[in-house]
Amino acid sequence: MSKRKDSHRATRRIRLGMVGGGDGSFIGAAHRIAARLDDQFELVAGALSSTPERARASAAKLHIAPDRSYADFAAMATAEAQREDGIDAVVIATPNHLHVPVARTFVEHGIHVICDKPLATSLAEAQALAQAVRERGLLFLLTHTYAGYPMVRQARDLVAAGELGELRIVQVEYAQDWLGEPVELQGNKQAEWRADPKRAGPAGALGDIGTHAYQLARYVSGLSVQELSAELSTFVPGRVLDDHVQAMLRFHGGARGMLWASQVASGACNALRLRVYGTRASLHFDQEQPEQLWFAPLGEPARLLRRGMAPQSTAQAAASRIPAGHPEGYFEAFAELYRDFARAWRGGESPAMPGLQDGLDGMAFIEAVLSSHQQNARWVRL
Amino acid sequence: MSKRKDSHRATRRIRLGMVGGGDGSFIGAAHRIAARLDDQFELVAGALSSTPERARASAAKLHIAPDRSYADFAAMATAEAQREDGIDAVVIATPNHLHVPVARTFVEHGIHVICDKPLATSLAEAQALAQAVRERGLLFLLTHTYAGYPMVRQARDLVAAGELGELRIVQVEYAQDWLGEPVELQGNKQAEWRADPKRAGPAGALGDIGTHAYQLARYVSGLSVQELSAELSTFVPGRVLDDHVQAMLRFHGGARGMLWASQVASGACNALRLRVYGTRASLHFDQEQPEQLWFAPLGEPARLLRRGMAPQSTAQAAASRIPAGHPEGYFEAFAELYRDFARAWRGGESPAMPGLQDGLDGMAFIEAVLSSHQQNARWVRL
Amino acid sequence: MSKRKDSHRATRRIRLGMVGGGDGSFIGAAHRIAARLDDQFELVAGALSSTPERARASAAKLHIAPDRSYADFAAMATAEAQREDGIDAVVIATPNHLHVPVARTFVEHGIHVICDKPLATSLAEAQALAQAVRERGLLFLLTHTYAGYPMVRQARDLVAAGELGELRIVQVEYAQDWLGEPVELQGNKQAEWRADPKRAGPAGALGDIGTHAYQLARYVSGLSVQELSAELSTFVPGRVLDDHVQAMLRFHGGARGMLWASQVASGACNALRLRVYGTRASLHFDQEQPEQLWFAPLGEPARLLRRGMAPQSTAQAAASRIPAGHPEGYFEAFAELYRDFARAWRGGESPAMPGLQDGLDGMAFIEAVLSSHQQNARWVRL
Amino acid sequence: MSKRKDSHRATRRIRLGMVGGGDGSFIGAAHRIAARLDDQFELVAGALSSTPERARASAAKLHIAPDRSYADFAAMATAEAQREDGIDAVVIATPNHLHVPVARTFVEHGIHVICDKPLATSLAEAQALAQAVRERGLLFLLTHTYAGYPMVRQARDLVAAGELGELRIVQVEYAQDWLGEPVELQGNKQAEWRADPKRAGPAGALGDIGTHAYQLARYVSGLSVQELSAELSTFVPGRVLDDHVQAMLRFHGGARGMLWASQVASGACNALRLRVYGTRASLHFDQEQPEQLWFAPLGEPARLLRRGMAPQSTAQAAASRIPAGHPEGYFEAFAELYRDFARAWRGGESPAMPGLQDGLDGMAFIEAVLSSHQQNARWVRL
Repeated sequence: MSKRKDSHRATRRIRLGMVGGGDGSFIGAAHRIAARLDDQFELVAGALSSTPERARASAAKLHIAPDRSYADFAAMATAEAQREDGIDAVVIATPNHLHVPVARTFVEHGIHVICDKPLATSLAEAQALAQAVRERGLLFLLTHTYAGYPMVRQARDLVAAGELGELRIVQVEYAQDWLGEPVELQGNKQAEWRADPKRAGPAGALGDIGTHAYQLARYVSGLSVQELSAELSTFVPGRVLDDHVQAMLRFHGGARGMLWASQVASGACNALRLRVYGTRASLHFDQEQPEQLWFAPLGEPARLLRRGMAPQSTAQAAASRIPAGHPEGYFEAFAELYRDFARAWRGGESPAMPGLQDGLDGMAFIEAVLSSHQQNARWVRL
Repeated sequence: MSKRKDSHRATRRIRLGMVGGGDGSFIGAAHRIAARLDDQFELVAGALSSTPERARASAAKLHIAPDRSYADFAAMATAEAQREDGIDAVVIATPNHLHVPVARTFVEHGIHVICDKPLATSLAEAQALAQAVRERGLLFLLTHTYAGYPMVRQARDLVAAGELGELRIVQVEYAQDWLGEPVELQGNKQAEWRADPKRAGPAGALGDIGTHAYQLARYVSGLSVQELSAELSTFVPGRVLDDHVQAMLRFHGGARGMLWASQVASGACNALRLRVYGTRASLHFDQEQPEQLWFAPLGEPARLLRRGMAPQSTAQAAASRIPAGHPEGYFEAFAELYRDFARAWRGGESPAMPGLQDGLDGMAFIEAVLSSHQQNARWVRL
Repeated sequence: MSKRKDSHRATRRIRLGMVGGGDGSFIGAAHRIAARLDDQFELVAGALSSTPERARASAAKLHIAPDRSYADFAAMATAEAQREDGIDAVVIATPNHLHVPVARTFVEHGIHVICDKPLATSLAEAQALAQAVRERGLLFLLTHTYAGYPMVRQARDLVAAGELGELRIVQVEYAQDWLGEPVELQGNKQAEWRADPKRAGPAGALGDIGTHAYQLARYVSGLSVQELSAELSTFVPGRVLDDHVQAMLRFHGGARGMLWASQVASGACNALRLRVYGTRASLHFDQEQPEQLWFAPLGEPARLLRRGMAPQSTAQAAASRIPAGHPEGYFEAFAELYRDFARAWRGGESPAMPGLQDGLDGMAFIEAVLSSHQQNARWVRL
Repeated sequence: MSKRKDSHRATRRIRLGMVGGGDGSFIGAAHRIAARLDDQFELVAGALSSTPERARASAAKLHIAPDRSYADFAAMATAEAQREDGIDAVVIATPNHLHVPVARTFVEHGIHVICDKPLATSLAEAQALAQAVRERGLLFLLTHTYAGYPMVRQARDLVAAGELGELRIVQVEYAQDWLGEPVELQGNKQAEWRADPKRAGPAGALGDIGTHAYQLARYVSGLSVQELSAELSTFVPGRVLDDHVQAMLRFHGGARGMLWASQVASGACNALRLRVYGTRASLHFDQEQPEQLWFAPLGEPARLLRRGMAPQSTAQAAASRIPAGHPEGYFEAFAELYRDFARAWRGGESPAMPGLQDGLDGMAFIEAVLSSHQQNARWVRL
C-alpha cells in the first residue's frame, strides 16, 4: 500500500484530492457528499476545473486551502506526493477520456485512486492502467454506485448462498429519457460531453449506463458472460453516439439473459432494474426503490425484503446506517463505496468494493458490444 | 356469412358447439364462462372429449342435450349443419395440433369459428385454413384473450391517436414458472400435451406464451416486425421443446425492441407485460394489473389511467361493464372477444377482434424464431 | 327449506325472479352476470321496473317470457308461487326502502331471498323480517359482494386459524369521490335515490358504503363492536344525508379500531381497505387489488399472498375459478355469493355466505352511528 | 440573533455542540450525518453522555478535541459561551425530559438551539422556554425530520396554492411495530427511556410518533385543529405509557379527519402516511416512499409526482440535491432542516423550518389527547 508511515491510520480521516467535479458538476457533488457522510474523509486538495478561475472559486467554496487548489492535475500529484500531510487518495470526477491519464499520474506518485466509471475509453488502456495499479499495490475504487445499496449486497449474498438454486435467467435494464431530445445541442452540459466521442469515448448510452447495468448483473449474479449479440441504435437525429442498446447474453454455465439500456425511453427516469431467476427462487431489484428487494421462491408467496429488517445478510447489515423504514438512498449507497475504501485503507477487508476488475469487465463488455454491433449483432466472445 | 336465414339475428342468443374443453380443461371452462357472461351465447352441442364417456359426462353437466353430445367433431359438424337450430359457431378448445383439422371441417360446413391460439402448427397449414375461411366469408375469432382487456384497447387507441408520438421502443415479456420443474412427467395434464411435439407442434413456450406476447406487442403498437434474432432454450432436463425464448426485434419504420417469454422464471405467475415508448410518451401495461395503464408523457408526471375513468377512449368505454374500482379481470377480457364476435355476427363492426391475421402473424413469428434459433440467432425476415 | 319437492335439486339450474334492476341499473346487471357466471341459475321472471313499459322492455331484452314479466312484485310473488316451474328465489335490486316490503312478500310465499344491502331502513324492520325468514326456514343471501373475494375468505381463514395471534387493531375505510359534487341534482340516477331519505333511509354514505366497510371488518376479523363513537358530515351544500362518516371502535375483547367512509374523497374511486393487526402478524386487503393479500408477520418479511397460489386456505381455493395470474374481479366475487347460495340450496354448507345476521349487524351499526352522531359522538353500545 | 460579531457568517461552517446522542444513540448519529451532509456545520463540542467515560470515548471517536468534551451540559454552555470560537448552536439529542432544561441553559448563554421533538414534557414548560427563546431572538429548530422531505414541501405548496381546492378531509397515521412486545424489559435502550414516564413524559406513542403525525398533517394542510376526541391504549402488558392512539379531529373551517398512531401494529415499520382531500384534488404522501407524491384531481387520472421532476414547486426544487431517480431519503430530509437553519443563521429566510410553534402545537396536542382520553374521549378544544 502507500509507502508513508501512519500511526493514526486506524482512526484519522483519509485525505482526499479531487480532479474535476467543480461547481455545477453533478457527480463531483455526489462524491463529496458520499465522502463526508460517514466522516472518514476530508477533502483537502483539488484540481477542480480545467478553467483556473473556476477551479479556484470551487476550491474556496469547498474550504480547500488556496495553496492546495491546483491549476492542473499533474501539478497536484507532484505537490501532494511531497507533502507530509499530502492526500491519501485522488477522486477522479472528470469526463471519461481523462480517467486513465489522471489515474496513471497519481498512481505513479503512489496515491490511491477513486474513479468514476467507465474505467477508460478502451480495454487496452484499461489493462495498462490496471497493471500499473497492481504493481504498486494501490487501492482502486471504481464508483459503480449501485453496488453500494444494502439490498444489492443482500441480493448478492442470497445468490452466493445458493438461495436461488442454479441460475437460469438474468434480465437487466437501465432506462432513462433525458436524452430523448437533442439536449446536447441545447446547452445541457451533462449531455454535451457524453455526446462527444472525444470526451465520452466510442460508446454513448452503452458506456454511460449500459456499463452500470452490466456491472450490476455480474455483481449480483456472480455470473460472467461468455458471448453476446448486441445492437446499438441512435434515435435522435444528429447524434453521433448510440442512445440505445439491446443485447442477448449467454453466460458461462448456460444461463441466458438480456440487457437493455436506453436514454430515449420517454417517461423513464433512472430505471435500473435487475431480475435474476434460479431453479429455486428469483429476486428483483429496482434502483428507484432501493430499500426493498423482492425474493420469490418457487411455490411460495413472494417476500418483500427490506433494508434493516430480518432476514439481513451480513453485507446488508454492514451497509445499513439507520433502522428500517427511514429510507436510505443514492448518497448512502455512494457513501458505502467510500466506507469500503476506508475499510481497505485502514487495513481491513472490503470484498464487496467494486474496483479494477469491474472496470476491466466493463471495458471488455463495451468492446464486445461495439464489435457485435458492427457485425450485425453476431455473437461475440468476451 | 352463414347461409341460413335468421329473422332474430339481432337479438337471439348465438348457438355454440364446443370441440374439446371437457371436464378438467382450464380453457374450455374459460370459454364457457366468457360466452355466458354477457348472455349472448348458449352452448347447445359438443364433442367435448376424445373419450366418449367423458364427452357424455361433460355434456350432461353442461346441460347439453344428449343427442347433441357427439363422439367426434366430424359427426358434430355434419349433424349440426343439417339442423334447423344447428350451431352458429364452433369453439375449438383442443390441443394445438387439432386446431386446423377441426376448423377446416366446420368451415366446410359453413360454420363460424372461435379458436384458441396458436392458429396452427405450421404457417402453411394456417394459410390454407385462412384461405378456406375467407372464401366462405365466415367469421373467425382467435382467442388472444389479452386483447380483450379494456386498458389494452385504450393503449392501442392512444398509440393510434399519436399520443405517444413516433414509436421508438417496444419491450414485451411473458414470464411464468409453472414449467420450472418437469411437471409434464408428474401427471400435470396441462403440461403433458404442451410438452409433446405431436400435440403442441414444434414450439413450446414459444407457441404457448411467446405468441401472446408477440400478438400483444403488435396489437397495441400497430407495428410489424421486419426481422428478428432469436434464441430458444430448454432448461429443464429431459424436456423436448423450448421453455424459454429471447429475441431482439427490428420493426418496420426503425423501432427496436425485445421479446422474452419463459415458463421457468421462478416466482413469476402469469407476468405478461408490455411497454411502448414513443417520442412523446410511453405506456406500460401489466396483465396481472389489468385495470390500469401507465401513461408517462416526456417531461410530465406519469398518469395512472384506470378502466372506467376519464380519459376513456371509445374502445375502452365499449369494453367496460361496471364502474371503475370494481375490478374486471380475465373472464371479462375473454368475454369481450365474444362480444366482438357477437357484434360481427349480428352485422356490426368489430375492428378490434383478433382473428385470422393475428393467427397468420403468430405462425410467421413462430417459424421465424425457429429458423433464427437454428442459425445461431441470425436475423431472419418475417 | 322450500316446501316444493324437487328430484333434480342437485343438478338443475335454480330459477330466479328479479325485482327492480331493470335497464340502466348498475346493480341489476351485476346480479345477472353474477348469477350467470357459474351457470347454476336462470332468470325466468321479473318485476324489473315500477314503470310497466320499462319493465316489459327490460324483460324482453333479458329473454324473460312475456307472461313472466310482472307489473308489480306482489303479483309476481303470487303467480310464481303457484307455478309448477315457479321461481326458487327472488333477487331484490331496488332502492333500500323496498328491501323489506319485497322480501316479506316473497318470504310469505315461501320463496328464498337474495337481497342487496343494507337490509332495511331500520333495525326494527330488519328484525321483523329476520324472524319471518327464520320461521319459514328460508335461505337469505345478503349481497355483501366483497365477502365473495377469495382473498377476503383467505384473510378470514387466517384470522380464524390464529395466524395473526390475538387481534389488537382493526382499521377499515371505504373512500369514493363520485358524490364530491351535487350530482344528485344533475341527473345522476344512482345518486338521486341515494340522496333521498325516502328511498335511501336515514343514512347516506353510512348506509351505502359504511355498512360494507363494517361488514368486511367483522367478516374478516370475527370481532364484534362493543361500542362506537361516530360523527357524520355533509360536505356538499344542499345535500340532506351524510356523505362522510368517521368513527372510533371498541371491540369486545379489547381490540381498537377506526372506520372511515366517504363519498367526497376526491381522487378515490372505490377504495375499500381493511387492515387487521394481531400480536403475531397483520394482514392488509385492498378491494381495488383483490387478487392479493398482504400478510406481514412480526419480525419477518411481508408476504404477498395471491389467489390461486400456495398457501391457499380451503375457502380461498373453493372460491377460485382459474389459475393464479389470470385476474378475477368483482363479478367473480359477486358470483361467489351466488355459488354460496346454490350450495346451500342444493343441501350443502355455505358457512361463508353473508346473510340475515350481517344485515341485522349492519342495521345496528347504522343506528348506533346515527345515535352517537346526534349526541356529539358520545360512545354508544351496540 | 447571536451577539457575537462574525465577518465570515456568510460562508464559514456553523459550529455545533451536542448534548446527548453519544455512541449507540440512533438520533445522535442521525443529527451528525444530517449536519455534515451539506458541509455547512462542524461538530466541535459535546456533552455526549451522562456517563463521563462514555462521553469522552464518544467525543474522541467524533474528532472532538478533548478539552471540548464536557462532563455536563451546564459546564459546556458556560465554557463555550466564553470562547472566541465557541459553538454557534447546541444540538439536543437527549431523552424528552431534558429537552427544556438543556435548551434553557444554552438559551441563557445566547446560543441557538436545534432540538428533538417533542419540545417538552408539558405545555407550560414549553411556553416558558418559547418565551425565553423569543426574548433573546435566538433561532430554534425543532427536528420534525419528515418536514424536510422535498415532496412534503411540494405537498404543502400544492395546498397553499389552492390546487386541492377547499380542504375537506385529512387522514394521517403513523404505524410501527417495534414495541409490539415488551422490549423495554428486554434490554432495548431506545425502548427503555421511551417507556419510562420520568424520561419520556406522560405520553408514550402519543409523544414519540403521534406528534410527528400531527405536525405533518398541520404542516402540509395548513389547517389547525379546533377540537379532538381521542383514546389511548396500552396493549402490551406491564407497560405504563400508551402504545396506541386513535383520534377524531375537527379542524377550524370545517374539515374533518382522523389520526392513528401505533407502535404495536405488527408488520408496520415506520409507516407515516398523510392523505389530504380537497374539493378539487387529493394528495397522498407515504414516508417510506418519500421520493413520490400522489396527486389525484377529481375526474382526472392520478399523477405520480416525483422529486426532481416537473412540475416542481419552489420549495421542492430548493430541497432537492440530485436529479430525479437517484433516491434521496431520511438523512437528506434531516439535512434539509439543517439547511433551513443555516440559511436563517446566515441571515436568509427559512419559512419552511419547523420550530417553536410546531413544538407548542405538539405539546397542546399531547395535552388535549391526554385530557380527552381521561374523559372517555370527550371532545376537547385545543
